[in-house]
Amino acid sequence: MKQITDYLKANEQRFIDELVEYLRYPSVSAQSVHNKDMIACARWLANHGKAIGLKAKVHKTDGHPIVTLATPRRRNSDRPHFLVYGHYDVQPPEPLELWDSPPFDPQIRGRNLYARGASDNKGQHFAHLKAVEAYLKTGTELPCDLTFVVEGEEEVGGEALVDFLKQNKRDLKCDGVVVSDTGMPDLKHPALTYALRGVAALEVRLDGPDRDLHSGIYGGSVENPAMALSKLLAQLIDKNGRITVPGFYDDVAKLSAYERKQMARVPFSETKYKKLLGVKALFGEKGFTPNEHRAARPTFEINGLTSGYQGEGSKTIVPSHASAKITMRLVPHQDATKILRQVARHLKTLCPPTMRMTVELGHVADPYIVAPTGHLAKAALKSLKSAFGHEPVLLREGGSIPIVEHFARILKVDTYLLGLALPDDNLHSPNEKMDLEVFTRGIQMSAHLWTDFAEA
Amino acid sequence: MKQITDYLKANEQRFIDELVEYLRYPSVSAQSVHNKDMIACARWLANHGKAIGLKAKVHKTDGHPIVTLATPRRRNSDRPHFLVYGHYDVQPPEPLELWDSPPFDPQIRGRNLYARGASDNKGQHFAHLKAVEAYLKTGTELPCDLTFVVEGEEEVGGEALVDFLKQNKRDLKCDGVVVSDTGMPDLKHPALTYALRGVAALEVRLDGPDRDLHSGIYGGSVENPAMALSKLLAQLIDKNGRITVPGFYDDVAKLSAYERKQMARVPFSETKYKKLLGVKALFGEKGFTPNEHRAARPTFEINGLTSGYQGEGSKTIVPSHASAKITMRLVPHQDATKILRQVARHLKTLCPPTMRMTVELGHVADPYIVAPTGHLAKAALKSLKSAFGHEPVLLREGGSIPIVEHFARILKVDTYLLGLALPDDNLHSPNEKMDLEVFTRGIQMSAHLWTDFAEA
Repeated sequence: MKQITDYLKANEQRFIDELVEYLRYPSVSAQSVHNKDMIACARWLANHGKAIGLKAKVHKTDGHPIVTLATPRRRNSDRPHFLVYGHYDVQPPEPLELWDSPPFDPQIRGRNLYARGASDNKGQHFAHLKAVEAYLKTGTELPCDLTFVVEGEEEVGGEALVDFLKQNKRDLKCDGVVVSDTGMPDLKHPALTYALRGVAALEVRLDGPDRDLHSGIYGGSVENPAMALSKLLAQLIDKNGRITVPGFYDDVAKLSAYERKQMARVPFSETKYKKLLGVKALFGEKGFTPNEHRAARPTFEINGLTSGYQGEGSKTIVPSHASAKITMRLVPHQDATKILRQVARHLKTLCPPTMRMTVELGHVADPYIVAPTGHLAKAALKSLKSAFGHEPVLLREGGSIPIVEHFARILKVDTYLLGLALPDDNLHSPNEKMDLEVFTRGIQMSAHLWTDFAEA
Repeated sequence: MKQITDYLKANEQRFIDELVEYLRYPSVSAQSVHNKDMIACARWLANHGKAIGLKAKVHKTDGHPIVTLATPRRRNSDRPHFLVYGHYDVQPPEPLELWDSPPFDPQIRGRNLYARGASDNKGQHFAHLKAVEAYLKTGTELPCDLTFVVEGEEEVGGEALVDFLKQNKRDLKCDGVVVSDTGMPDLKHPALTYALRGVAALEVRLDGPDRDLHSGIYGGSVENPAMALSKLLAQLIDKNGRITVPGFYDDVAKLSAYERKQMARVPFSETKYKKLLGVKALFGEKGFTPNEHRAARPTFEINGLTSGYQGEGSKTIVPSHASAKITMRLVPHQDATKILRQVARHLKTLCPPTMRMTVELGHVADPYIVAPTGHLAKAALKSLKSAFGHEPVLLREGGSIPIVEHFARILKVDTYLLGLALPDDNLHSPNEKMDLEVFTRGIQMSAHLWTDFAEA
């Protein structure tokens, strides 16, 4: 490893210069005016990989091309094979006037490199590429085979990658996927994200009278659907913040003492968090911390309410109906489809005799978890510690990341999320940046990772 | 009285013919294309009054003219003076294709005269005019002075009458107002409406986060404003249908045994009523009947609910705010302004610590009641019985009738609502009609009324 770390040290500045070069491409997937820039950017990446010694290919798709960069694989090799996922497309840079320097003219100020895509995601997957370069250029044998899959449609939710995974299932068969496209709390807290929440959506509607009624002539003698809906919804979360649907928590995996201890290590300031969200006070399920609430516990969220008159002034009616859009965030090992059925059934039992209820089931996505105590997870934690010099934290992410689900479903493989974005990296916002110390340490982490993975 | 009833009998058909003539005017106040018809109709009415022997005047206003028809008043007369209110403007007749005969070509089918305005309100106030004619044409001395005030802006909520009342306060000083512009259940149940509900409006809004939040990243750690609003609203009506705002019922006049007995006499079929409103089941305050619920008890009605995303599909957010539009129907002797203050104060006490609450107070109208046991009320009941041959019922009306409030406020006088519309008269709908037996008996009722009033 000494040979490699020396190489990394010696080439630190060049790596930054190369990243700057990569960031100059305005590879905005959402804007068709940049279609040629997308192709140029993909080609640049492929050529860069080739120059390092990787087998590079730009794959045409129905949308933007996918770049693969692979170590030359020996036939019948018994070396493990890992995928590194990234995306070379970036968010639109607008509004331009809010940038302190042009989004595609990368500039270093202090420890940060400012440019659209610096952190999301060019800097992050480029770090892995530089680690591989160190192996190849120093003649150090990589203890595993690696394939980089870098897509150009992440920011537009394109389906090209899904088809690509399906079509290249055999070539992409691997022992694990590494994705650096999430976050870490700060330099002292490098992070492995090991779980994602799932989601289940539905809409519930109550119909009372068959039309809006005059509240003077009829009001008082019929139940108001908006009130009936309020009473219905109010029952679904108790005063301790618990969801009251029978069986809702049955399949929720208990957070282990280890997980909770790890979660407690994630820096958190309630004052700063409240300020960030603009709320007066926090509220969450009793017995859990805010970090657990937002990532490790299921939720029942009303996303929208509709009933009656919503314009200016007032309208004296008993509205004919009222409805609520609901999504639930689910945690391992809840089954999204089962939950949806349970909730729908429970809603029906709560429907008052005055109302006709309609429940429309929406989309589902199952939660994801990879055991943080598995051998590859432990190896990843080891690499993080070696590179950053601090004990890493284990994170759960409250949202869903579709790509992880695709890897699991199509390639039947676990994903390790080793995020290199800091909370202030301004992803999707003006003045996006990459912390260059995170970048440099990210390269070191990746260099360790392949050895640690292979030894695990 | 014999002389008068003979006259009415002898002229029954002519009265109908004259009403038909009156109904031919398309006096649609809402449609400016009919402005000339409005004037022609007002003039016809004035001339008709003059021919009977009344002092007639067409008063110009900023909008449509007001017609007054008055008995010749003797200076320093000690005869009582009553007003009769009506309106010669009608609702737009559209959609025309749903009429079985043209709206302004009156036709008799069976016992009904079909035309726009037949029941609302030309037929009703014209009945009073015919009664007065009987006194004047038979040389029977009217025991009171009468002034008809017939406006042309009732259907458009015009303010001309309010100004007119203010400007002619002295001339219009009187002992009571008679309005036939409400309903009666059927021919066997002539009715005096003696109370109207008031109204108080407000809007309550809860603000949680200062923007919609990603439900994956933050959901679970902050209270959802739509849920907080549901919980807030759900507390405001208990399972017995009682409004839980402290002090809300303090000023509600208890329904006397007499009133409840009278109310119970109003025909009511739960099956028909449910079918009429298209509801599965009725719901109302425990201990009261549906007729009491809708007319004699206060309500707390959500008129509209708004929060978050209401478009197609789903949006995984914690909405930043949620709001509800509310109107309350109030009953004697609740004070609308006081109720509004009480409710706003109570809402504030229910606001959870996670939310910022805004309460916006809206319009108010006080409830109205005239004692059904007062001497003029009793006289009116006597007249109804004489004309219809059945014991009249006492009604409360669940809505507000602004004009009654104007008479009370400006002229400081009580209003007696002697409605001649049947439930199936199709007011504001195609195929509006007047039951000609009701019309004829209405004339008789009015003939009795002036004598009964004067004797009371």
